[in-house]
Amino acid sequence: MYLTQPLHRAVQQMPDATYSVYRDRTLSHRQVYDRVSRIAGGLRVRGVSKDARVGLLSLNTDTFFHVCLAIAWADAVVVPLNTRWTAKEMAYALDEADVEVLFVDDPFMPLVSELRTALPGLREIICSGDEPAPGGLTALADLLGEDPVEDAHRQGEALAGIFYTGGTTGSPKGVMLSHRGIFLSAIGSAAALSRVPHDGATLLVAPAFHLAGFAIWVQGMVLRMTAVPMPRFDPVGVMRAIEDHRVKQLLLVPTMIQMVVDHPEVHRHDLSSVEALVYGASPISEALLERARKVFSTAGFMQAYGMTELSPTTTILSDEDHNDPSLRRSAGRAAPYARVKIVDPADEEVPRGTVGEIVASGEHVMLGYWKKPKETAEAVRDGWMHTGDGGYMDERGYVYVVDRIKDMIISGGENVYSIEVENVIAKHPAVAQVAVIGLPDEQWGERVHAVVAVSPGAALDLDELREFCKREIAGYKAPRSLEIVTEFPLSGAGKILKRTLRDQRR
Amino acid sequence: MYLTQPLHRAVQQMPDATYSVYRDRTLSHRQVYDRVSRIAGGLRVRGVSKDARVGLLSLNTDTFFHVCLAIAWADAVVVPLNTRWTAKEMAYALDEADVEVLFVDDPFMPLVSELRTALPGLREIICSGDEPAPGGLTALADLLGEDPVEDAHRQGEALAGIFYTGGTTGSPKGVMLSHRGIFLSAIGSAAALSRVPHDGATLLVAPAFHLAGFAIWVQGMVLRMTAVPMPRFDPVGVMRAIEDHRVKQLLLVPTMIQMVVDHPEVHRHDLSSVEALVYGASPISEALLERARKVFSTAGFMQAYGMTELSPTTTILSDEDHNDPSLRRSAGRAAPYARVKIVDPADEEVPRGTVGEIVASGEHVMLGYWKKPKETAEAVRDGWMHTGDGGYMDERGYVYVVDRIKDMIISGGENVYSIEVENVIAKHPAVAQVAVIGLPDEQWGERVHAVVAVSPGAALDLDELREFCKREIAGYKAPRSLEIVTEFPLSGAGKILKRTLRDQRR
Repeated sequence: MYLTQPLHRAVQQMPDATYSVYRDRTLSHRQVYDRVSRIAGGLRVRGVSKDARVGLLSLNTDTFFHVCLAIAWADAVVVPLNTRWTAKEMAYALDEADVEVLFVDDPFMPLVSELRTALPGLREIICSGDEPAPGGLTALADLLGEDPVEDAHRQGEALAGIFYTGGTTGSPKGVMLSHRGIFLSAIGSAAALSRVPHDGATLLVAPAFHLAGFAIWVQGMVLRMTAVPMPRFDPVGVMRAIEDHRVKQLLLVPTMIQMVVDHPEVHRHDLSSVEALVYGASPISEALLERARKVFSTAGFMQAYGMTELSPTTTILSDEDHNDPSLRRSAGRAAPYARVKIVDPADEEVPRGTVGEIVASGEHVMLGYWKKPKETAEAVRDGWMHTGDGGYMDERGYVYVVDRIKDMIISGGENVYSIEVENVIAKHPAVAQVAVIGLPDEQWGERVHAVVAVSPGAALDLDELREFCKREIAGYKAPRSLEIVTEFPLSGAGKILKRTLRDQRR
Repeated sequence: MYLTQPLHRAVQQMPDATYSVYRDRTLSHRQVYDRVSRIAGGLRVRGVSKDARVGLLSLNTDTFFHVCLAIAWADAVVVPLNTRWTAKEMAYALDEADVEVLFVDDPFMPLVSELRTALPGLREIICSGDEPAPGGLTALADLLGEDPVEDAHRQGEALAGIFYTGGTTGSPKGVMLSHRGIFLSAIGSAAALSRVPHDGATLLVAPAFHLAGFAIWVQGMVLRMTAVPMPRFDPVGVMRAIEDHRVKQLLLVPTMIQMVVDHPEVHRHDLSSVEALVYGASPISEALLERARKVFSTAGFMQAYGMTELSPTTTILSDEDHNDPSLRRSAGRAAPYARVKIVDPADEEVPRGTVGEIVASGEHVMLGYWKKPKETAEAVRDGWMHTGDGGYMDERGYVYVVDRIKDMIISGGENVYSIEVENVIAKHPAVAQVAVIGLPDEQWGERVHAVVAVSPGAALDLDELREFCKREIAGYKAPRSLEIVTEFPLSGAGKILKRTLRDQRR
């Protein structure tokens, strides 16, 4: 179970079939095998030895994926960087991971001098794009000119990559994932499909430095599929790529699905090749699902929930599940290789329907956080990864993610999940929109604070709201303070930015 | 990745759905969970501790599978016995594996006293059938009356079972398989299907003491399916079971397929629920495939090739492959989690089309032969399991098994090692020289054929020879045809040229 294994299999079984199509470059499995073994040779020549970390700062291009394979081939560890980070954030990760050699794609050349200055330990920067390499940097062509080397067949629990996750609490953490864990998530998620899209094309449009985008590439390889990388999402580009390459499988986030299905040109494209549409990051609204089902009428839908620390998929909402309207808000249930439960702060499983922390175990759990044994021990306890997500499980094992635990309010020693309170308040006829946050409180530690936009012409006061809430939920969950606003701070995706709300009020 | 994991998942997700149907006993996942945890409790009370070996001599019944789970639950190791063996053969395996406790199904009660006498170390025999336990033996009900215990969650590379395979050199060898290996073969083979039969019923008719029958049970569990065990194969029983339980998946050997599809009653049964028909042990003839495709018109066909030592599946001939007449004699190509190649005696890969030994690697390779480090080292070299099967690979990676390097005969789905039969026949006073080969047979796939030179003045007939053999070895190993010759083709070294013998008779 390892990342380069599917390439060997594909070369043995269909050497002349297409491994990847990117712009005007179509490469067969055999050609990619050659390319990968030469890039690995180039890394060896450059002193990259067993377990060394090699950075990768690139959009989704064919070379991104070839380099990932080459790094494993050379017995090294890939450290993909979030392309949206600032140079400072990148330098933090590269430094912490002791990255020796860094691949940089064309659009990120402007960051190179700052990275160089910040990282004296960075021995070499290789331009992995198609533009000529600026002076002082190594061209990918130099590596491609090296003698090929044999695959190290790095596998099993050996470290495959360090995937940095956005620091919710300041500095990012490097998630160490094994070859086995990533492979297991990919092959096990494929087995959870109803119809398995062998040998077709996978569209790789979700950024592959995130594990969701990385994992769908691996799943495609396991199914011997052709990779069609797209460096940037745009709805027309996605439709054209599906049509041009007869794409059978793709992963999108719901925002992307919405932009495709609501695009005025959507009916001018033939999307009937799609057999598997995987989405993650959040459930899909009923209305959007209905539109998406019409547009992708040939596709099985699969929602995958998880996190980088879980390689990443842990629960799956199957295509069949999507037909049950009561499950539309669910993140699905435990994947065949995963165990999932909901626990209280003492790690005891809570009854079904009770909100607690979602935890998961299995061989897809991360090896740990790089150089952070304390955080690792906090996150993985007795083999169970603590996701930090609050949720509950219904009688059939379906998991509902209600909130980040960090959005949980602890008031008078009781845990209050803001989403639960928001769902109640939203039913009040005077309420147009609502967000519930915790605010520091002398008496309660934190108090439940409701921020509400009222419907036109309506009025609302705290006493009435509390009474309304207490008909449905415990008194300690009812808001202790109320604030009427006319508008909310919103994210680009139109989601209320609760962190901003909180920060403004603390 | 472990055998009891799917039970936890099923109890979490569909506690009241059916785990198994056997005769008039239908048990839900929740009931089987209870049963398994009590049998495990009973084993603990009886001194079965971590890593202890527990034997299982049973036809395919629901209890067979519940006991397999209970043994893992109790952190112990299952040793399933070939039910066709003589008591002497069974005693050999039970003794070698230091089995402490043995479950015995009703039909095998007559063997108990012989086993007891032969095995002073066997502490306890538990009657796992539905008949009352004879005096001195423990009833399964006693274990079911014990307090349930928690699952040990024995997993990963921990030993799951010791599966004895027919002895090529006289004595059988105990193949040690890990939980991960068996789970990987099951989940990875499911991912290789085009249509995955989630949540339906699996018919378990191939004997589960063989790994093919065991593995299809595990695959069914991974897909949250209902187990429908059948203790003995008969074609009408199979058709009725498919109809009664709306069976979606089953594994048969080609001989069984033939007996079903050619049965006069076949058109009186509704077999349209079948989505996946898996077969193994040997390829299927073109004519039979054509008839089978008509009878199982809704099913995807999958041929799985492998061996006990490979947990067991290693190459797969997909449903789509079956449409290509040129592939009908192939055993398929490397499964997604397996590496396969053809090597010469120096372990160098041979060119495509050249016959050599089929070898395979991956995390599904056995842990080794029980107490046989020398044989293990011979079989698994540098991570590659040497199958002992001769074969070649075509340009597209399809493997063709041409010969058994160790002269194994596959008759009715059972492995017969010719040397074992030769050793018995050679003891007959009328026999001067003997060679046993497999010949193509309509009914059995291959039949055991004995070529004998008789001693001067002596005579021998088939009936007498069969009776003689059956005193020492299972009936299926006894020759089904006999040929008297005056001389054998010999090699320069004076060794009988079995390949020549075979070629002259095919």
